[in-house]
Amino acid sequence: MKQSPIGIFDSGIGGLTVLKEISKLLPDENTIYLGDTARVPYGSKSKETVERYSFEIANFLLKRGIKMLVAACNTASAYAVARLKEELKIPVIGVIEPGARAAVNMTRSKRIGVIGTEGTIKSSAYTKAIKSVNPSVSTFVKACPLFVPLVEEGWADDSVTETIAGRYLDELKACDIDTLVLGCTHYPLLKDTISRVMGKGVVLIDSAESTAAEVMRVLSGNGMLNGSNGGASHSFFVTDSPERFLTVGKRFFGEDLKDAGLALLEGC
Amino acid sequence: MKQSPIGIFDSGIGGLTVLKEISKLLPDENTIYLGDTARVPYGSKSKETVERYSFEIANFLLKRGIKMLVAACNTASAYAVARLKEELKIPVIGVIEPGARAAVNMTRSKRIGVIGTEGTIKSSAYTKAIKSVNPSVSTFVKACPLFVPLVEEGWADDSVTETIAGRYLDELKACDIDTLVLGCTHYPLLKDTISRVMGKGVVLIDSAESTAAEVMRVLSGNGMLNGSNGGASHSFFVTDSPERFLTVGKRFFGEDLKDAGLALLEGC
Repeated sequence: MKQSPIGIFDSGIGGLTVLKEISKLLPDENTIYLGDTARVPYGSKSKETVERYSFEIANFLLKRGIKMLVAACNTASAYAVARLKEELKIPVIGVIEPGARAAVNMTRSKRIGVIGTEGTIKSSAYTKAIKSVNPSVSTFVKACPLFVPLVEEGWADDSVTETIAGRYLDELKACDIDTLVLGCTHYPLLKDTISRVMGKGVVLIDSAESTAAEVMRVLSGNGMLNGSNGGASHSFFVTDSPERFLTVGKRFFGEDLKDAGLALLEGC
Repeated sequence: MKQSPIGIFDSGIGGLTVLKEISKLLPDENTIYLGDTARVPYGSKSKETVERYSFEIANFLLKRGIKMLVAACNTASAYAVARLKEELKIPVIGVIEPGARAAVNMTRSKRIGVIGTEGTIKSSAYTKAIKSVNPSVSTFVKACPLFVPLVEEGWADDSVTETIAGRYLDELKACDIDTLVLGCTHYPLLKDTISRVMGKGVVLIDSAESTAAEVMRVLSGNGMLNGSNGGASHSFFVTDSPERFLTVGKRFFGEDLKDAGLALLEGC
């Protein structure tokens, strides 16, 4: 059981930023990653559809003996983690609660901004999570649908992206926030651009790091940490052909991304 | 049989531009439209996946008694129409051959540009179709992955979009083309912007119009035109919840887009 892998999933490649932080913090843990590249993106899709896809993926990973499930996708965390927690017998961790806690710890002005996909913002999941940690914090949210395609195009550091970021973030700047949650796993690749636009007074919260810390806390609290240190194995599955995942994924996970199998999900 | 509907499908809402032209040219024809909004977009996905999705959709529409199938999606046309033509017993029309023929008819310099999604461009389907009409024509291609999300964001006429179009189209401008194929059903909404960037010497080919003409030609040639004119019915299905389809779809089809049902595809 302790040697069993952690299952990590995302709509595509973005969740590799979370996998990277987990394997940095817990280098002995085995992992299985699934990117639902045949149906990416989730950000513009409905709760019902994202929930159904998340359960199909959970079943695929459960059959491979995972000891914990991490929804490394903000939209899936917003829409599906509550029900996954209820129905699965293993611990389930999303990226929203850890990100929300990190943001509340960080803010001094008690004014937090949140950016994400249409789905994540529409769900109000971050606002609810932040308020449940500290009801006196005010939140200001903005969906930024073009950020994901800009990152996938490889234009993370580009004047066009900075112009678009300026337009999306203008209203958040006017709200006098001191903390901004990057509520999408693609956004850490835009850290420099977003930082330039928001200015030095605003701290950016990357959920990937706080999620990795939460994974460690829960595994450790349940006596589930992998004690052996014979070198961890990382396996990768995608639902579309692996070629594009391997090319674009290296921007997220680095050269360690060597190979990926094709996952046949029920109903994919 | 003559009263049976024409089945039209797309990965999402873009194919509504094709439906609009068909119903303008053939106002008595009944239609069923299916937008695969749960799995949109197709443009960045592999041939195998797009082909599988197209067959699932064809089966859904065949069960509803369609007399003809129109793949109103360039990526599906590039990857799936050849096999759909082989295996289906009704006429199948894609958007690529009509667009290619229209472009060859239009060019004087015999230098044609083609823009589209990653999948459409990678398939070389337009180049093959153009060469099969006239082997002496030269083609110059460019994938423009950000155009679809820019249209869906509602930024079709926007300075940011013009900047991005300038960057994508610079190399095509240098190729001295006189005709440019808009090889994606979203791109007609960018006509003004693309026209400004390319300049007056370049004619833009919108496959939607030539596809509608091809639909008329094939129906008429097979004695399958609907003779009655009691007012045509247009029904709509989507694979994700209809809400977003109805909002964004009005930009494509106008206020006639009134209602849409949820399609349960085998394996969606």
